[in-house]
Amino acid sequence: MDRLKIAVVGLGRMGKRHVHTLLYRVPLAQVLAVCSTDSHEIDWARNNKEYKEFGITVYSNYEDMLAHSELQAVWISTSTDVHASQSLKAIEKGIHVLCEKPLSTDLAEAQSVVDAAKRNPSVKVMAGFSRRFDSSYRDASDKIFRKKAIGDPFMVRSNTCDLRDETGFFVRYASRNGGIFVDCAIHDIDLSLWYLDNPIVKACWAAGTLQHHPELKELHDVDNAVGIVEFWGGKIAYFYCSRTQAHGHDVCTEITGSEGKVMVNVVPRQNNVVLADKLGMRHEVQPEYWQRFEDAFALEANEFTEAVLKGKEVPLPLETGITVMKIGQSLQHALLTGEVVRFNEKGQRVN
Amino acid sequence: MDRLKIAVVGLGRMGKRHVHTLLYRVPLAQVLAVCSTDSHEIDWARNNKEYKEFGITVYSNYEDMLAHSELQAVWISTSTDVHASQSLKAIEKGIHVLCEKPLSTDLAEAQSVVDAAKRNPSVKVMAGFSRRFDSSYRDASDKIFRKKAIGDPFMVRSNTCDLRDETGFFVRYASRNGGIFVDCAIHDIDLSLWYLDNPIVKACWAAGTLQHHPELKELHDVDNAVGIVEFWGGKIAYFYCSRTQAHGHDVCTEITGSEGKVMVNVVPRQNNVVLADKLGMRHEVQPEYWQRFEDAFALEANEFTEAVLKGKEVPLPLETGITVMKIGQSLQHALLTGEVVRFNEKGQRVN
Amino acid sequence: MDRLKIAVVGLGRMGKRHVHTLLYRVPLAQVLAVCSTDSHEIDWARNNKEYKEFGITVYSNYEDMLAHSELQAVWISTSTDVHASQSLKAIEKGIHVLCEKPLSTDLAEAQSVVDAAKRNPSVKVMAGFSRRFDSSYRDASDKIFRKKAIGDPFMVRSNTCDLRDETGFFVRYASRNGGIFVDCAIHDIDLSLWYLDNPIVKACWAAGTLQHHPELKELHDVDNAVGIVEFWGGKIAYFYCSRTQAHGHDVCTEITGSEGKVMVNVVPRQNNVVLADKLGMRHEVQPEYWQRFEDAFALEANEFTEAVLKGKEVPLPLETGITVMKIGQSLQHALLTGEVVRFNEKGQRVN
Amino acid sequence: MDRLKIAVVGLGRMGKRHVHTLLYRVPLAQVLAVCSTDSHEIDWARNNKEYKEFGITVYSNYEDMLAHSELQAVWISTSTDVHASQSLKAIEKGIHVLCEKPLSTDLAEAQSVVDAAKRNPSVKVMAGFSRRFDSSYRDASDKIFRKKAIGDPFMVRSNTCDLRDETGFFVRYASRNGGIFVDCAIHDIDLSLWYLDNPIVKACWAAGTLQHHPELKELHDVDNAVGIVEFWGGKIAYFYCSRTQAHGHDVCTEITGSEGKVMVNVVPRQNNVVLADKLGMRHEVQPEYWQRFEDAFALEANEFTEAVLKGKEVPLPLETGITVMKIGQSLQHALLTGEVVRFNEKGQRVN
Repeated sequence: MDRLKIAVVGLGRMGKRHVHTLLYRVPLAQVLAVCSTDSHEIDWARNNKEYKEFGITVYSNYEDMLAHSELQAVWISTSTDVHASQSLKAIEKGIHVLCEKPLSTDLAEAQSVVDAAKRNPSVKVMAGFSRRFDSSYRDASDKIFRKKAIGDPFMVRSNTCDLRDETGFFVRYASRNGGIFVDCAIHDIDLSLWYLDNPIVKACWAAGTLQHHPELKELHDVDNAVGIVEFWGGKIAYFYCSRTQAHGHDVCTEITGSEGKVMVNVVPRQNNVVLADKLGMRHEVQPEYWQRFEDAFALEANEFTEAVLKGKEVPLPLETGITVMKIGQSLQHALLTGEVVRFNEKGQRVN
Repeated sequence: MDRLKIAVVGLGRMGKRHVHTLLYRVPLAQVLAVCSTDSHEIDWARNNKEYKEFGITVYSNYEDMLAHSELQAVWISTSTDVHASQSLKAIEKGIHVLCEKPLSTDLAEAQSVVDAAKRNPSVKVMAGFSRRFDSSYRDASDKIFRKKAIGDPFMVRSNTCDLRDETGFFVRYASRNGGIFVDCAIHDIDLSLWYLDNPIVKACWAAGTLQHHPELKELHDVDNAVGIVEFWGGKIAYFYCSRTQAHGHDVCTEITGSEGKVMVNVVPRQNNVVLADKLGMRHEVQPEYWQRFEDAFALEANEFTEAVLKGKEVPLPLETGITVMKIGQSLQHALLTGEVVRFNEKGQRVN
Repeated sequence: MDRLKIAVVGLGRMGKRHVHTLLYRVPLAQVLAVCSTDSHEIDWARNNKEYKEFGITVYSNYEDMLAHSELQAVWISTSTDVHASQSLKAIEKGIHVLCEKPLSTDLAEAQSVVDAAKRNPSVKVMAGFSRRFDSSYRDASDKIFRKKAIGDPFMVRSNTCDLRDETGFFVRYASRNGGIFVDCAIHDIDLSLWYLDNPIVKACWAAGTLQHHPELKELHDVDNAVGIVEFWGGKIAYFYCSRTQAHGHDVCTEITGSEGKVMVNVVPRQNNVVLADKLGMRHEVQPEYWQRFEDAFALEANEFTEAVLKGKEVPLPLETGITVMKIGQSLQHALLTGEVVRFNEKGQRVN
Repeated sequence: MDRLKIAVVGLGRMGKRHVHTLLYRVPLAQVLAVCSTDSHEIDWARNNKEYKEFGITVYSNYEDMLAHSELQAVWISTSTDVHASQSLKAIEKGIHVLCEKPLSTDLAEAQSVVDAAKRNPSVKVMAGFSRRFDSSYRDASDKIFRKKAIGDPFMVRSNTCDLRDETGFFVRYASRNGGIFVDCAIHDIDLSLWYLDNPIVKACWAAGTLQHHPELKELHDVDNAVGIVEFWGGKIAYFYCSRTQAHGHDVCTEITGSEGKVMVNVVPRQNNVVLADKLGMRHEVQPEYWQRFEDAFALEANEFTEAVLKGKEVPLPLETGITVMKIGQSLQHALLTGEVVRFNEKGQRVN
């Protein structure tokens, strides 16, 4: 049986996890190589016994890796600023791409990847909106669209609230992430488009506050923000993003329709355990999106692998990412200026 | 022992409930009289056996009732448009007033009641922000301010989502209520001021949609709306109000601080019963705010009664209502115009 | 309007609460008197300002109190050993009785009260099985019997688990309570009879352990016990009683039927508040049955008052208590001997 | 890298799932072969495209399969009556065994497997108590033993309640399963031994009822049963097993200790979705133990694989299964006879 020969680019926290997912949960994939430009990551990978056992080659140069004659696909898990250029290089070589969201914080650059993918229809290119592969979000979709359980959906509330990072990792990473609405809310915006059936944005506004990471001030960012997106046709989404939660990674979504409401993860839980003691009854919350979405990442990798091996469409059109990014940047603009950002009925920004 | 001689004005759904509360749960109050100008309500009250047993006189004229020589206090539960005038008449006669919120949808008129109360310091005047008397909201306050359980609070999310009214009652009532943010969100705004420690409003914006009550269009109102209120000092509140929920009266509040979050009624429950059957596990939700806040109304009436009998301050300053109304009307303005409403550092509206 | 002239006998924790309930939540009752033989309680009551304001006379002798010419009813809230004698004296004088459960730990004595009540049909006598008046348990009954929501009920699990008492109050009180299954499980047994539609007991067995109150050993009691009661006709109930919970008063009941399950209070909650912080998400649990059943006690008092004033049947037949006690004592016997206690098809004990 | 060459014996529902688990979630395992004596299963496997792609050989004879020169391990997933003989044959050939629980419903036969394993210490033999590999049960263990979160554990409540099987599958299978306490409660008994730190059984009793599967009567079995197991040293476990739940696979465990309680899955949930509609708020429940324990099976397979490849101890001693079976059979005996089964302080049955 032929397995998909794939490489993972970037060996930060997520890159390592993606290697693990491919090794342990994607039987039709074979990890040929990994690649990093960070010397610590390279050392770590070269000394990794498991990587050796699985026959994974470690590259320090992306182009060298792309030149590997057997390589069929790459999973790009680097920092956002090189997503687009690495995707473009792979596409040019006919190598399939699963790229972490977003393709770029620059809309024109992101569009260039979409364009390149269109010019190379035999190359599968997918942006990794992992929540689309989560069983609860899929069940929500099934209830809404197939079972019509809530009538016509018209309102989405969605939160991405991270555990406060005391390690400094987040702040080092923040300068490249495009701001809180681009980095955090991108999944929430994507979910809104999904559950509201691809509505056209009409206006948005946002407000934010800086509570814990004063370093963000010079990056013109905040660590807590709320925003409202109004769509043409009487649909609305609103978001809360936070970097400073005390209790864990708290990501929830509610979709309200004419006949009901679907709630996803409104009470986040680490597992099925509750402890009753002098403080009452308590459960723990996942510390990171990894614990919440580990299964979704595995399904994403399996579905991408299958799409490539069987020549099927990737499960998520690449263009969705562009619309999501446009809304995220407009919210970020509203946040910084205090002004409402408006769009015409084609969804084109008018101010 | 002397009990407070009180009358209830207005015998709609809530007026009748207030009479019941006073009879059954406020031992230091004695209901002398009720008053209504609605002939059906008057007939109903005159034929009410319980009212007879308790010796309650039924009036069809408010002034006549105020002339009752023993009357010490009135609970005003009429439609909003007469709250202020009825309050003023009672205050002038030295009669204590517990008035349903809001005092008026006209800020100047509301202020005239506040002014009259100031001129008559021996008369106790209180606006009925019933959630302030709910044991869960008080526990939240206790956790936040006394136990410092969440560090510094900076963000409030609060919802007032009503069960869809299929009886037509709501639409008949809607034209007098001042719009969704004035009618629904007034409690949520009040809670925000409470938990964020009386912040000064800086800006607000809102968006709404009309899903079920097309009659509201000519009233320039919507039946679902979300709004954000930004306060000076990096504090934020955001609200969702709805008239169209399928599952019940869903009212929740979350207060986020630097060290934690307090959640009030995020999963609403009718009682302690869960039914497990082919559909899974389910619990019912209170149909109305009455079921949710019945105990709070009883405590409110007891605390008001005690304040009058013992000459203590009423538990809630009357001025709070003015600030709440100002913010509610600004959200309603933002909703209708699409514009951001802004305020200076004194909280004075600047556009 | 004529109110029921009632007295409360016993001014321990519950007696005081019953006075409060009558004053504040039972408008058709008037508390004429209280009675205690404990000098501290008598002093406390004689100095109680509220009692004075409400015109409550304090007696130190039960017979003297019964001689009060206006007295119509007594609420007996003394220790179990005098329940029966006090009930009998009241019945003989034609005074209505609401007696805390159980009537007696001696079945013959309890039966004597039932017999006296039968001989005096104009006197209302009710044992206070307060859970029968709880809105959740009533909703469970409504779902089971009226809505047929679970088909035919055949299995009941019911727990009465108390917060560990560190004050020593419990141990002082334990010697009079008849053992853990008589004192704790009596409500659970009663609920089983209710939801299983008065089944006939066939056999029971129990096991227990002593974890925290070594003093109980000489009383031949334990502080944690589980028991199974098998009924004729394929119905079963099982119980867990505990004196040593760390987290609060944890009382739950599950009724399983052929088509579903009704769960009452399986996750106990103090109120609607959840705190999210470094420990996860937690809610508090009621410390005592009072907080859990305060509303039930009020409804019980109102229904008893109404039954007397209107000459209606009391809502709960007195005989139920005898059956409950018989099962409780059999479980206690099984606990102490390790033997199965068996009954014939008439429910008569055969070993 | 060398992967463990393994075969799966039995291709019923679970056998197929085990093949899937090995293929997709155990990268260090390679499925060489499957084996079944059922002609439908053999046909199904021979026509299975995925099995072909992965190079899996299909055997209709167990001995032939064992003769495969490369085979290192078998996962026995046949009906219970051949577990022991198949395990013995593999052990004799030096082939490692992961055998579904129980080894046998005959204690002597089960012991013969334990003895064979002892005689062949280089062969790894493990019984599949899958709950030991579930992340929530492990977290419970961690809280209890490492964090001492509940003080000294002394009481376990554990349920195994299956969704009612309308397909007839269960009844066909029932005659081989040893009775409800042997088949259903075996995991609950195992959990009790784990969390109570291997206590010695002292006595047990049980009661049951037949609600939905009258065919079980001639098998001397029931479809709902409760049982209590008392251990020496004041520890107790009690169980509820059911074949007839309407709402799903409801498996929960509570461990009570001197300072608190750990609850595992007391409110079972299919996923993170809640639907709010006219019926209230509801969530679905897993239909089968597979959905509840899929991840546990994967971890079990990985840990077994690693134990074999690295020559480590299997994570669960084989003897545990014997003790569990002894208690399960005693409960079943108590259920059928109505008698208490008693044991001496060495855990030897005395009646």
